[in-house]
Amino acid sequence: MDNAVKQLAVLGSTGSIGQQTLDVVRALPHRFHIVGLAAGENTELLAKQIDEFKPKFVYHQGKSPQTHLSDTEYEFLSPEDIARHPQVDTVVIAISGNSGLGSTLAAVKAGKNVALANKESLVIAGELIINEAKLNKARILPVDSEHSAIWQCLNGEKEKAARIILTASGGPFRNYSMEQLKGVTPRQALNHPSWQMGKKVTIDSATLMNKGLEIIEAHWLFNMPFENIEVLVHPQSIIHSMVEFTDGSIKAQLSHPDMRLPIQYALSYPERLPNPNLPRLDWNQINSLTFEQPDPDTFPCLKLAVEAGEKGGTCPAVLCAADEAAVELFLSQRIKFVDIARLVEKVLEQHESTVNPGLDEIIVADAWAREKAHQLADGDSQW
Amino acid sequence: MDNAVKQLAVLGSTGSIGQQTLDVVRALPHRFHIVGLAAGENTELLAKQIDEFKPKFVYHQGKSPQTHLSDTEYEFLSPEDIARHPQVDTVVIAISGNSGLGSTLAAVKAGKNVALANKESLVIAGELIINEAKLNKARILPVDSEHSAIWQCLNGEKEKAARIILTASGGPFRNYSMEQLKGVTPRQALNHPSWQMGKKVTIDSATLMNKGLEIIEAHWLFNMPFENIEVLVHPQSIIHSMVEFTDGSIKAQLSHPDMRLPIQYALSYPERLPNPNLPRLDWNQINSLTFEQPDPDTFPCLKLAVEAGEKGGTCPAVLCAADEAAVELFLSQRIKFVDIARLVEKVLEQHESTVNPGLDEIIVADAWAREKAHQLADGDSQW
Repeated sequence: MDNAVKQLAVLGSTGSIGQQTLDVVRALPHRFHIVGLAAGENTELLAKQIDEFKPKFVYHQGKSPQTHLSDTEYEFLSPEDIARHPQVDTVVIAISGNSGLGSTLAAVKAGKNVALANKESLVIAGELIINEAKLNKARILPVDSEHSAIWQCLNGEKEKAARIILTASGGPFRNYSMEQLKGVTPRQALNHPSWQMGKKVTIDSATLMNKGLEIIEAHWLFNMPFENIEVLVHPQSIIHSMVEFTDGSIKAQLSHPDMRLPIQYALSYPERLPNPNLPRLDWNQINSLTFEQPDPDTFPCLKLAVEAGEKGGTCPAVLCAADEAAVELFLSQRIKFVDIARLVEKVLEQHESTVNPGLDEIIVADAWAREKAHQLADGDSQW
Repeated sequence: MDNAVKQLAVLGSTGSIGQQTLDVVRALPHRFHIVGLAAGENTELLAKQIDEFKPKFVYHQGKSPQTHLSDTEYEFLSPEDIARHPQVDTVVIAISGNSGLGSTLAAVKAGKNVALANKESLVIAGELIINEAKLNKARILPVDSEHSAIWQCLNGEKEKAARIILTASGGPFRNYSMEQLKGVTPRQALNHPSWQMGKKVTIDSATLMNKGLEIIEAHWLFNMPFENIEVLVHPQSIIHSMVEFTDGSIKAQLSHPDMRLPIQYALSYPERLPNPNLPRLDWNQINSLTFEQPDPDTFPCLKLAVEAGEKGGTCPAVLCAADEAAVELFLSQRIKFVDIARLVEKVLEQHESTVNPGLDEIIVADAWAREKAHQLADGDSQW
């Protein structure tokens, strides 16, 4: 069983995580086989992926991909139908943003192994997903480097962790003052010091909202109270996170910052597979790993996320949707960098949360938050 | 079963590791019960331990301990007989030096859980002990902080490690030149920067022989070829060692340098137990963890140990015995600090190793090496 070829669907195959997932599959063709690919508008790249991996099931949003395969060689299915297809063992959810939720839920309800790179799913609908996973014996395999690190450190331990220490690079503006942050441009914010990622995640890393979302994700993945999750700034991004146990022992996972490692671990779990393409840490080059406390006043997104996570209900969905809207507004230069946190805060302030929301209520809250964010941004400067 | 009280024998109870073991037992009386204590000459402390823990079996080398218990309340047994006694579940081998071997073998042959703090046992008779442990279903539980770290990091992993990275504090003379080392006194050498340990281990830490012995120990404990064991100097002694897996992922174990943690983990394994006496790492206080490569020319003991380990046979026993003799000679100011490595090297050069030695041959080689070390040290300065 362990040596069987795993049948993968990669949803969001043309994005950063999707492409890196296919890179792992390319290196280990005797262990992984692509049966499904789903992409958004980038049908040019999708066409190349179809030619190379010859999936049985394909989804695309844009025009039909110009592949060398004929239309009859693959079937057009929705991402959800690919996720729940009986021929798929493991679904990689590499769709970014709130739109990943539908596929995550479909995969979880079908009892699949779900390699989850879409952090919004757990943030906005953590309780729903975790409950459905238990009910349908689905296994959620974290792909985020931090959660993969925590998961690796918990491997084999009989008890749950006493404390989770999420490391954060601190982003490109780590030691900036509030005054310096005001002038920050999208180009500067997209220049992350240690990780190559998609645009949304990169801006979220610069505001520390990304770390805030990861706190909520860790809360659900590892059943950990918010007060036992700490953030530690570690600019080198070598230690990807740490776990403290009841006896005070801490385990940490380290590697070169390269997303292919956590992706591969999620796919190969419980095995580890040799992959010569993955870089090794060279201890001749590492003289020092440094640590600092995050600055909550200059980077308020961290606190906003924890508060939304603790309140629960539809608050995390509103946090995510308002942030997505705010990041888009910043990238199109309609608001300033420091306005991202302010806008999210204002939207959250005006939200009336629903307790134990179902999917419908989450979708309504999401739409309301986006609308409200745009209203506020488009209105006069009273917010 | 997990919540049963474990019945412990602590052999070497008055030494540094022995005392710290009793400190752990004192903190967790509902989980650990002392049935046997064995000590050397320090009968005054042993008497106090007997009064406090009321063991059934006692061994002492010196005069009878003056306890409040009558002689009939405990039985005098040899350390080996305590180690193999049916009422004992777990034997803590906290005897230092080569004299721990007999007890280790007795415990292993009796199929006990053997919490092994005596590194010489595995260094001089690794093959013998590992084979006997397999044969008798004994479990060897490492107590050395480095090996405990490796063991914790391997927990739950399906495959063995690709590489072990043993961290070393570098000792009190980390950045000394050969010239500076020549004037070093026992008092300076006994002043270790991060660990409180016995005299022999402290001197071995200063020469890096301790790390060399740990390489051989790791080789046997984790079935790891010598070329896949690296030493990395890490002066803060926070990361206690690391393991690299086939996919390039590294796991590290961290804690405040306090031997009670690895001792407790060996006793509580596979559980972890909360113990408020164990210090927690405070990430407000840790700004930086640093790393450097060891200097093999200034600290030749590291290379001597690896060579003896690779040659095998009776070479590791000779390494250990010559080192014990050399450390004693240094502490009594009869040789210089830099002569420790030179003396060990000379003794090894003159040794004719026996292949696959039995215990008798190991004992003969040990005695020969001590004799030879003293001969060389007492003779003229030709060595």
